[in-house]
Amino acid sequence: MPKQRSTENGFDYDLLVLGCGPAGQRAAVQAAKIRKRVGIVDSREVVGGVCVNTGTIPSKSFKEAVLYLSGYRQRNIYGAGYRVKSEIEMADLTFRCNRIMQAEIDVITAQLKRNHIDVLFGHARFLDEHTVEIESHEGIIKRSAEKILIAVGAKPARPENIAFNGRTIFDSDDILNLPRLPRDMTVVGGGVIGTEYGSMFAALGVHVTVVDARKRLLGFVDEEIIECLQYQMRSMGVTLRLGEEVKSCKERENGQVVTELKSGKVIVSDCVLFSAGRRSATDDLGLENLTLKTDERGRVVVNEQFQTEISNIYAAGDVIGFPALASTSGAQGRLVSCHAFGIQDKRMDVPLPYGIYSIPEISYVGFNEEELTSKGVPYETGVARYREIARGHILGDENGMLKILFHRESHQILGVHIIGESATELIHIGQCVMALGGGIEYLRDAVFNYPTLAECYKVAAFDSYNKIMA
Amino acid sequence: MPKQRSTENGFDYDLLVLGCGPAGQRAAVQAAKIRKRVGIVDSREVVGGVCVNTGTIPSKSFKEAVLYLSGYRQRNIYGAGYRVKSEIEMADLTFRCNRIMQAEIDVITAQLKRNHIDVLFGHARFLDEHTVEIESHEGIIKRSAEKILIAVGAKPARPENIAFNGRTIFDSDDILNLPRLPRDMTVVGGGVIGTEYGSMFAALGVHVTVVDARKRLLGFVDEEIIECLQYQMRSMGVTLRLGEEVKSCKERENGQVVTELKSGKVIVSDCVLFSAGRRSATDDLGLENLTLKTDERGRVVVNEQFQTEISNIYAAGDVIGFPALASTSGAQGRLVSCHAFGIQDKRMDVPLPYGIYSIPEISYVGFNEEELTSKGVPYETGVARYREIARGHILGDENGMLKILFHRESHQILGVHIIGESATELIHIGQCVMALGGGIEYLRDAVFNYPTLAECYKVAAFDSYNKIMA
Repeated sequence: MPKQRSTENGFDYDLLVLGCGPAGQRAAVQAAKIRKRVGIVDSREVVGGVCVNTGTIPSKSFKEAVLYLSGYRQRNIYGAGYRVKSEIEMADLTFRCNRIMQAEIDVITAQLKRNHIDVLFGHARFLDEHTVEIESHEGIIKRSAEKILIAVGAKPARPENIAFNGRTIFDSDDILNLPRLPRDMTVVGGGVIGTEYGSMFAALGVHVTVVDARKRLLGFVDEEIIECLQYQMRSMGVTLRLGEEVKSCKERENGQVVTELKSGKVIVSDCVLFSAGRRSATDDLGLENLTLKTDERGRVVVNEQFQTEISNIYAAGDVIGFPALASTSGAQGRLVSCHAFGIQDKRMDVPLPYGIYSIPEISYVGFNEEELTSKGVPYETGVARYREIARGHILGDENGMLKILFHRESHQILGVHIIGESATELIHIGQCVMALGGGIEYLRDAVFNYPTLAECYKVAAFDSYNKIMA
Repeated sequence: MPKQRSTENGFDYDLLVLGCGPAGQRAAVQAAKIRKRVGIVDSREVVGGVCVNTGTIPSKSFKEAVLYLSGYRQRNIYGAGYRVKSEIEMADLTFRCNRIMQAEIDVITAQLKRNHIDVLFGHARFLDEHTVEIESHEGIIKRSAEKILIAVGAKPARPENIAFNGRTIFDSDDILNLPRLPRDMTVVGGGVIGTEYGSMFAALGVHVTVVDARKRLLGFVDEEIIECLQYQMRSMGVTLRLGEEVKSCKERENGQVVTELKSGKVIVSDCVLFSAGRRSATDDLGLENLTLKTDERGRVVVNEQFQTEISNIYAAGDVIGFPALASTSGAQGRLVSCHAFGIQDKRMDVPLPYGIYSIPEISYVGFNEEELTSKGVPYETGVARYREIARGHILGDENGMLKILFHRESHQILGVHIIGESATELIHIGQCVMALGGGIEYLRDAVFNYPTLAECYKVAAFDSYNKIMA
């Protein structure tokens, strides 16, 4: 940390970033690359943000451990009773997480250091539009900057009537602290986090019940894909209580948790995961010292350049809300620095992919069937099932599918929807064809390695042709 | 099989296909889709050809079993001693193969049936340019066709001075019949098959020695990638004897095999895999009854439309030689039927991907560094290492890398080279960007799901920018 830094513009930094998750990191690195003086503040005393420390990385590492140790992928090959380890402990599953988190922290720390970015640990509060105070156990320091980025992220919303205890009633930040695998688990909330963890614990043999007020999981995803997901989750023994609301949730004397639904149903389980919404971490940020307002979920409002109402203050990542993905947050962070420092950046218009790391995995890009129908676009579908291709058999995924939505006349691809092994990787081929305008013809003509899942695109393209030729 | 089929042109079939591998299947299906009468002949009494029955599918299924049962992918996570099964038997590894082969055979059989294609088992021999006789244990039948496709594939070349016995001295067709895992194995030939099997057995803990007359493995692959492969294979305990030729190879009394090299070195091992070249299966095809000649490896010569010198007779797949991949053979088969029956087929120009299913896996598309250097193209590279990205840590692949070669001025992508987990899948993003002209800019601007291996493209694109901005 520089003691005295005399600068042209009189500020300590050209850019000060609050929050060291994907948005903050990418903004900091982009500014540093063009020789700006950059500081980054994080209250966690560790880099990486929610992404590395409690969110994306731990849950995705956990998933990989679940798949491996439960033998989930091999069940279609070696039989349903197959498991690498007959008694799986939470420690087996999280051992892996800790190593991976540490590796990520090392990569990020090295990158910040290499780019001469000052890392300051402590809680930041705005004093005015160019100054923050940073409070840590070492005391309080002040830092000023020409531009400031708010990238403090979000945390699980904790309804007041739920007695979170980190022992039997969890939110998504502390669920991996479970001392042992429960026999049964109630998941409240069928959004991304609830679906991901619910399906992972189900793959481990935990009896999971998912409760959601909506009529289906993941309301923003294509209906056919969700049908396939729900079918497979139920096949794994998951109970879905859809269109149901939670009335109360209490730990009883024997340590079990009783969840009562408004319909009168009662669910008794060893533990409960509450995953109903997230709240931006803006409550103690000193925004009252500025004129900045936040909405009911604590979100900061920004324009298309990610500027707040105060033009030298930007916000990006989970703190501004949807889509709140590590991938998009990183891209936003980079754009902030490009805008703040006048970097020419004519971007290509590439559609965003969405990835849900449930078991089975889901990913999509572009529109879904319901959206196209309501827009009145004359689309047609091309479908490939994993069981039709060799790689599906080799991986033991017989239920996976890939669906292409394309325009009946122009043959342009309007959306790609995948459920199954490696969906989040596979989607990028469709994304590329959409962005660069290759159409169904590209997928028909391209030769793919054999055996790969990528062949699904070819099979789906031929299926498309059969439909439009008929 | 139709007893009497009166036809417009007086032939039994519009198209008769000899060989039921990828080239034959795709040609047959394409012709059947436009209502041609199609027959397909195979001497194996089973559909699928070498691809399904002795080549691609068994070896790729074997690889998946090796990776899983040996815990290879998990060693970086759980430690080097980690294995799912402490004593792995050949039966554990091939159990999976048989199921996958059967599933593939079922898919192909259903597809042929659905398209009303006659499947005839027996050995085919040309009588004249429109007629073949088919000999099976049921006797000899004759079938005539307007067009005939030779897609009989290839088989391992068996040098006469090597005493193949299917017990200790194997070719690539019978290596998976090994009764038990050997302690040590000598692989003669460092081409695709030798490298694939050599690395798989090494991952199982077998002490493998690979002998090849050339100075490196896989001469057609980018040098840096091969350096990485050889480094990793040696780390697994493989001995590479490069620039060395085999003088003799004999089983001695105790059942071990002694391989003597021309340099005087002697290698003693439990078994030997000979994988030095393949020969087209044209020896007993009655080509002497036509004017068709084959070259010294039995290959049939064809023009760009895959026509032989006799215009109604086509050849496609392994029987015509390079590249002899299931993927390209399938594409060739489809083009044969398009040409033979005048189907309009304006194809996009998409570069071919190459996939090597070694451990680690390799895939590439476009040119390599040596080719571009010899052409005098001013290229630059962008590199991403798996250990720089989150997905690499989650998968436990710290050694993987992706390299983009691009034109320094136009930013066009000239080649992509990958070694590591899922290389054969990941390559298709690069292939698509190359085919559709997206350039490095596409990879910089696209947002990829996090965490995925696809992010390597973005990291490599940023690495590229750092180089050309400097």
